[in-house]
Amino acid sequence: MTESSKFFKPFPQSHRIYVPGKLFPDIRVSMREVEISDPLTPKLGIYDTSGPYGDPQKKIDVNQGIEKIRKPWIDARKKNGEPLTQMQYAKKGIITPEMEYVAIRENQKMDVLLGENGSSITPEFVRSEVAAGRAVIPCNPNHPECEPMIIGRNFLTKINSNIGNSAVASSIEEEVEKMVWSVHWGADTVMDLSTGKNIHETREWILRNSPVPIGTVPMYQALEKVNGIADHLTWEVFRDTLIEQAEQGVDYFTIHAGLLLSYVPLALKRTTGIVSRGGSIIARWCMVHNQENFLYTHFDEICDILAKYDVCVSLGDGLRPGSTADANDEAQFSELDTLGELTKVAWAKGVQVLIEGPGHVPMHKIRENMERQEQMCHNAPFYTLGPLTTDVAPGYDHITSAIGAAMIGWFGTAMLCYVTPKEHLGLPDRDDVREGVVTYKLAAHAADLAKGHPAAHFRDDALSRARFDFRWNDQFALSLDPDRAVDFHDETLPGNGAKESHFCSMCGPKFCSMRISKDILQFVKTGKLDMEK
Amino acid sequence: MTESSKFFKPFPQSHRIYVPGKLFPDIRVSMREVEISDPLTPKLGIYDTSGPYGDPQKKIDVNQGIEKIRKPWIDARKKNGEPLTQMQYAKKGIITPEMEYVAIRENQKMDVLLGENGSSITPEFVRSEVAAGRAVIPCNPNHPECEPMIIGRNFLTKINSNIGNSAVASSIEEEVEKMVWSVHWGADTVMDLSTGKNIHETREWILRNSPVPIGTVPMYQALEKVNGIADHLTWEVFRDTLIEQAEQGVDYFTIHAGLLLSYVPLALKRTTGIVSRGGSIIARWCMVHNQENFLYTHFDEICDILAKYDVCVSLGDGLRPGSTADANDEAQFSELDTLGELTKVAWAKGVQVLIEGPGHVPMHKIRENMERQEQMCHNAPFYTLGPLTTDVAPGYDHITSAIGAAMIGWFGTAMLCYVTPKEHLGLPDRDDVREGVVTYKLAAHAADLAKGHPAAHFRDDALSRARFDFRWNDQFALSLDPDRAVDFHDETLPGNGAKESHFCSMCGPKFCSMRISKDILQFVKTGKLDMEK
Repeated sequence: MTESSKFFKPFPQSHRIYVPGKLFPDIRVSMREVEISDPLTPKLGIYDTSGPYGDPQKKIDVNQGIEKIRKPWIDARKKNGEPLTQMQYAKKGIITPEMEYVAIRENQKMDVLLGENGSSITPEFVRSEVAAGRAVIPCNPNHPECEPMIIGRNFLTKINSNIGNSAVASSIEEEVEKMVWSVHWGADTVMDLSTGKNIHETREWILRNSPVPIGTVPMYQALEKVNGIADHLTWEVFRDTLIEQAEQGVDYFTIHAGLLLSYVPLALKRTTGIVSRGGSIIARWCMVHNQENFLYTHFDEICDILAKYDVCVSLGDGLRPGSTADANDEAQFSELDTLGELTKVAWAKGVQVLIEGPGHVPMHKIRENMERQEQMCHNAPFYTLGPLTTDVAPGYDHITSAIGAAMIGWFGTAMLCYVTPKEHLGLPDRDDVREGVVTYKLAAHAADLAKGHPAAHFRDDALSRARFDFRWNDQFALSLDPDRAVDFHDETLPGNGAKESHFCSMCGPKFCSMRISKDILQFVKTGKLDMEK
Repeated sequence: MTESSKFFKPFPQSHRIYVPGKLFPDIRVSMREVEISDPLTPKLGIYDTSGPYGDPQKKIDVNQGIEKIRKPWIDARKKNGEPLTQMQYAKKGIITPEMEYVAIRENQKMDVLLGENGSSITPEFVRSEVAAGRAVIPCNPNHPECEPMIIGRNFLTKINSNIGNSAVASSIEEEVEKMVWSVHWGADTVMDLSTGKNIHETREWILRNSPVPIGTVPMYQALEKVNGIADHLTWEVFRDTLIEQAEQGVDYFTIHAGLLLSYVPLALKRTTGIVSRGGSIIARWCMVHNQENFLYTHFDEICDILAKYDVCVSLGDGLRPGSTADANDEAQFSELDTLGELTKVAWAKGVQVLIEGPGHVPMHKIRENMERQEQMCHNAPFYTLGPLTTDVAPGYDHITSAIGAAMIGWFGTAMLCYVTPKEHLGLPDRDDVREGVVTYKLAAHAADLAKGHPAAHFRDDALSRARFDFRWNDQFALSLDPDRAVDFHDETLPGNGAKESHFCSMCGPKFCSMRISKDILQFVKTGKLDMEK
């Protein structure tokens, strides 16, 4: 048993709250409330992905796994016969506890301010979005530790963090710690992309300790099972891997079923060929055997498995562009069209669907990606990697991609897969994960402001008011990364006294524009002013 | 006398080249050429802002100042009577050496590839853009050390780095080193925003050693002259400061002449009031004296001084929004309209004009800023700070602002003022300057790709080809920050052997998609494949 503080330093001036359900009174949605010294600022319930790790009252034992909060709902459904997927319940008009949970979560306690006029999110709205396929709630019943969350264009923009060892580096413990570290900073889902040894065991540890949905690319484990020789892959090996991982509780699978044999030659003409690991493995298999992609030819059977476990399918873009030169080309868009075809197959079986997107795309070609995805894939949620808007900045690709991510999020992408500063260069360490997650949180938040999510602006406004009032500690506590904000401030003006100051080291007292603004305000009100300033 | 390597480590696999003029044979435009091991990649002349510091052949003596490369051209003009501003020459149809210099510089040696069909930039095109006011070449004859550069929407997007001590921190030596450090990483201009003691002397050192245009906010020194008491400011003190700084060689002045008395109440209603230092000083002066802004009432005389020294005016946005809540409000746009009126006054006197822009603006309100600026300010070049697309990420505001900067650059903004990670928190140090400059270089480059600058994509394509060929050292050398790319790569796979590897630590050899792509290509060509992979 260890304190949650083993994993990270808790956020300052904050405490955990639990908001109860109305339809389902046993629902307790975890949020973080910041203690702001200004009584006029509305008390936002900050969206909190850290699960029990964010509650100092909870003891964590990674050997036991975290609390199985969804178990009562899952058990109740089993008693009523064969359980359905969230999409099937939604289509029948049934609101599940998961649906009410995500509605409460999205509103961030701003329901009262947002009012009943339809701008706050209701459980019924969640149901209708899931029924229409415009949103997914990834929650395998075999992952009862997972706190429900929703991915869809009419909700908060979500972010995914990738972890996973490779043959070259890292251990199981490190990967579990990276998962916990990711959700502390705000990762909404985590993909375990392990490719080395102990792939099953690593995943088990991550699942039993994860409060967020876990995604995988089952092809990686299938390849390990045939000793890394892509040409030896078979449908049977892949199918068994799917079942094994679904039984463990994986919430969504990336499956590259849209990469057809006939598209491979289109990709070989490119500047950077195929840059998706799963895509390149399947492309090699297709070419060597001169056969159609077995993920495509067996897609019906795949969907039967996914429906049984309510695992979402994330239709992978094996032909995503790996350079701005290859963006929006025939290879990429041909595959996207096929993903649209597969979406309908999956929906007919009640399987929830995400569509994966690029990659490297210069800014002027981003909107076309979103529009084409919506049109060809029938408004299934889009889940993109970046996109990176230039190729010239290795070491800064969290930023080249945050530009594209914020834009495509604004245009309607539902989840952004993070990119760390190590992209193209090496495996991310703890610092890179923090940098990547926070960068993507800010990109997602910028997208939410721009697309007009009703609860998005309250946090910006609270922080701006704190800034103007020189409430430094409130400003830090409302930041996405309070630790860094404090550290940076204290580099030039350390000590508690400086946090009461009506200026900072950037301009000094005489040139502080906010201080002068306050003086003018006082002059207007009272006719008096301080001549010393 | 010191080696230029005193200031920074030179870029790898690179050498300095000088491209001669055709109209003016004594022109030698400095560029950096990267030695790429692939003979098919076109040899790009990378735009180089580092002046003599980037040439290991040059000895630098900061006490003497750097070479005065423009002196012969300036002397020749003086012999022909009263010299004109670049805009006045342009309007008379005269191409100056500065104009040919910037044309060569913009093409980055890609003229041959771009062809004669008008896609490469000609001296005549430069002249016509300067004549129309759509571009400026900031080059005070008293700053002959400055290598000419151009700021305008139809050219490469430029970036500015701010340096300057405040009352709280830093010394003259540090500021000169920050300037050199900035131009090493690619700052196109540098603003000296010093507000502490020795303000004249600091600026003298910076000017005599700067190969890029230097901007200032003369109000800061004027305020020091009246002991920091804004209410004691007078037109005479300000005028004398302008002349003093113009005599020293400052290339552009930020002047907050558009902030009218009647706009101040609009700003006081805001969430964050006035956040421009110069703006708040002027606003206080106007309110306390109940008089119109003396920069506005004396703008004619200001322009006479600027025209005499060919100093550009950068019309400051004293009412830029300091929070997303205040974006695009009446205060901001009222001032912008007045800047448009002042643009015509300046142009009539031959003064080159830049217009400064925000600030904090959520993504969906960015385009309106650009369109309104173009319309109201008659296509004078726009020069923006960010904009920051959310307020919630202090410590990461180089990124919140890079998102907005890349977007507004694409829409037509000519120069982006960098923001460092320390924004809102403290004074940037050396690491922050590097982080800020490189972040803004990548944002500017993303903008150039999106707006279709003809020479922009060559570097991306060269780097992408190097990446696909596993030419690691070429990839590093073509990066915006080769040192960081190498460091990050070497954290997991150090040693020279790893730089010959056909994989990296991200995926390991078996899962390397690029390696598999190459295998498939070989299989298609030869029918053979390596079953071990």
